Amino acid sequence: MIEYKDASPEVRAVFDDLMRTRGTGDVTNFWKAIAAHPPTLQRLWDSVKAVMSGRGALDHRTKELLYLAVSAANGCDYCIASHAASARKAGATEEMIGETLAIVGLASETNALAKAYRVPVDEAFERR
Amino acid sequence: MIEYKDASPEVRAVFDDLMRTRGTGDVTNFWKAIAAHPPTLQRLWDSVKAVMSGRGALDHRTKELLYLAVSAANGCDYCIASHAASARKAGATEEMIGETLAIVGLASETNALAKAYRVPVDEAFERR
Amino acid sequence: MIEYKDASPEVRAVFDDLMRTRGTGDVTNFWKAIAAHPPTLQRLWDSVKAVMSGRGALDHRTKELLYLAVSAANGCDYCIASHAASARKAGATEEMIGETLAIVGLASETNALAKAYRVPVDEAFERR
Amino acid sequence: MIEYKDASPEVRAVFDDLMRTRGTGDVTNFWKAIAAHPPTLQRLWDSVKAVMSGRGALDHRTKELLYLAVSAANGCDYCIASHAASARKAGATEEMIGETLAIVGLASETNALAKAYRVPVDEAFERR
Amino acid sequence: MIEYKDASPEVRAVFDDLMRTRGTGDVTNFWKAIAAHPPTLQRLWDSVKAVMSGRGALDHRTKELLYLAVSAANGCDYCIASHAASARKAGATEEMIGETLAIVGLASETNALAKAYRVPVDEAFERR
Amino acid sequence: MIEYKDASPEVRAVFDDLMRTRGTGDVTNFWKAIAAHPPTLQRLWDSVKAVMSGRGALDHRTKELLYLAVSAANGCDYCIASHAASARKAGATEEMIGETLAIVGLASETNALAKAYRVPVDEAFERR
Repeated sequence: MIEYKDASPEVRAVFDDLMRTRGTGDVTNFWKAIAAHPPTLQRLWDSVKAVMSGRGALDHRTKELLYLAVSAANGCDYCIASHAASARKAGATEEMIGETLAIVGLASETNALAKAYRVPVDEAFERR
Repeated sequence: MIEYKDASPEVRAVFDDLMRTRGTGDVTNFWKAIAAHPPTLQRLWDSVKAVMSGRGALDHRTKELLYLAVSAANGCDYCIASHAASARKAGATEEMIGETLAIVGLASETNALAKAYRVPVDEAFERR
Repeated sequence: MIEYKDASPEVRAVFDDLMRTRGTGDVTNFWKAIAAHPPTLQRLWDSVKAVMSGRGALDHRTKELLYLAVSAANGCDYCIASHAASARKAGATEEMIGETLAIVGLASETNALAKAYRVPVDEAFERR
Repeated sequence: MIEYKDASPEVRAVFDDLMRTRGTGDVTNFWKAIAAHPPTLQRLWDSVKAVMSGRGALDHRTKELLYLAVSAANGCDYCIASHAASARKAGATEEMIGETLAIVGLASETNALAKAYRVPVDEAFERR
Repeated sequence: MIEYKDASPEVRAVFDDLMRTRGTGDVTNFWKAIAAHPPTLQRLWDSVKAVMSGRGALDHRTKELLYLAVSAANGCDYCIASHAASARKAGATEEMIGETLAIVGLASETNALAKAYRVPVDEAFERR
Repeated sequence: MIEYKDASPEVRAVFDDLMRTRGTGDVTNFWKAIAAHPPTLQRLWDSVKAVMSGRGALDHRTKELLYLAVSAANGCDYCIASHAASARKAGATEEMIGETLAIVGLASETNALAKAYRVPVDEAFERR
């Protein structure tokens, strides 16, 4: 992991923008780890900033709950921990997180069963 | 797949409750398929009804977007099609669906990278 | 896909052994497809033969139900179809298949929740 | 994680039923963790009890081996540890567990290859 | 899916850059589909262009084989088809593709077994 | 895990061949773990030796980068650690590993989006 004090100017520039955008005084381990490959650090930060901090149709709290749900579905331990923290910071209550994870669990079951029973998509879902 | 007319009384009872709860005149293929094993049909419908139709902290549209996101992360073609339809019915706009899927994509990338770089969870995320 | 009549001698030798072992007059699409890379065909057939046809502690029907369950968990459409057929051929009833898929569904839910809640392994499970 | 002594009456009721059903004096970490969201605790315990403790076509040991296999395919560390323990308790020998995991490994390989080669499902598997 | 003739100026600008970069006269279905959400189209194309067309340590053919391997591991039917085509265009022989998919298969098996047996990481791999 | 000194003659024979082939004085934890089921140990070592040490169209370094990429896509912590080490030993630079993981990340995003948007495979990819 690359610490700020050991970082190259290009890595520091990303770390600086990240801390400024988030109003924090340090970057989390994820960013220190992918800083091992500066082009990936730059590209990912641009993506995360655009998707999560940009104006759009969904509010920030909903976005963080969605991020948490996908991270749980993908079984990413680090991302579950970090996005549960972000969701709480964005105002999610324990009940909201509980309901989000209930949907992760239930969807994982119906997803598995829809595949297992090889269910054909209903005509009604194909037409919009 | 079990059609209503060929269904046993116990399967019909679930189909009836499902159509009543959703205000529709037919059940979708998923339910016709898992009706091949009546205990699974009964159990799953009870679960889906409790999680998705129950009162709680999250509104129905947010729940459907979460269900769509998890289904996409799990790569369930049937469930993506059906929950995109449900989300639209619950009031989700195309922009909301676009943003939801953008989070699915981006989270899948950062999830993969957090695992690939074996990033240790920050102390700050462990304490609540 | 490589048909028997177009196959090289080395591919035919695997196809012949496969048909003899299974008592069938043709090979299924999976084997015709991976015959595109003969070393993979040979290696996989040796593995499948050893694991599925060998003598062991589990009976053949249980093995096929396990194969079906793993294929469903991995979302492999082809493998679900082929191992459901094999399980039936090995004597599995519709009820057994229904119970197997119920476990696939339920385990997928509890698996997702155990990861989502980041549950630490109980001491009692570590000691054997 | 919610310990019994800190649990609400509704959570205690589930813990009590769980300990009675399993004949144990404590609940495992999974249940203590999901007790953070009592409706999920109640719903999941009902499901697990129905699927795993109910009478059916498959014996309990086979069910636990199936649960272990799905948990391994889904890469759930906690669930692998807990269901390997349950399988042993239900009478599974080390050889049975070894064969189960061999099928998990082999199926994961053929599942990946059937997808990678985009193998079409044989006609024979579609007709029943 | 958004066709070029129906596309907004911002979508056309991405399509134009994509066709110019790849020296082709049309865009593939993937890009037409994600054009439903223009910010995702723009962001993804920037990412793909940077990662796949940029100068770096790996040659283009190796990159396409890696992309194919990951797509197969993730079970993405569309991406397997498109990146097998790209790999061939970049000079990959059938033997190279066969060996790539053999590694996808074998790694999926050893990945599953390393998780199933809960193997602790060797000290030697932690130190670099 | 089975240590060499406690191993049966059949397990030792595999360990000996493995150390000889790799020119090392010990076997890694993966092999000690699956030695719990000797037929799996024998079968897997035969497979790994054939696929990874055999002559073929791809050089060893490329094979190890592919193995690393698939292990990362499958989220196998042990295999990521071991194959990153193997890739470095086979001559992969940090830049090559950085680019490999960038492809893992990006492909995971486009894989998820191609599934989420249910993109139909282009005609051009089906014909070869």
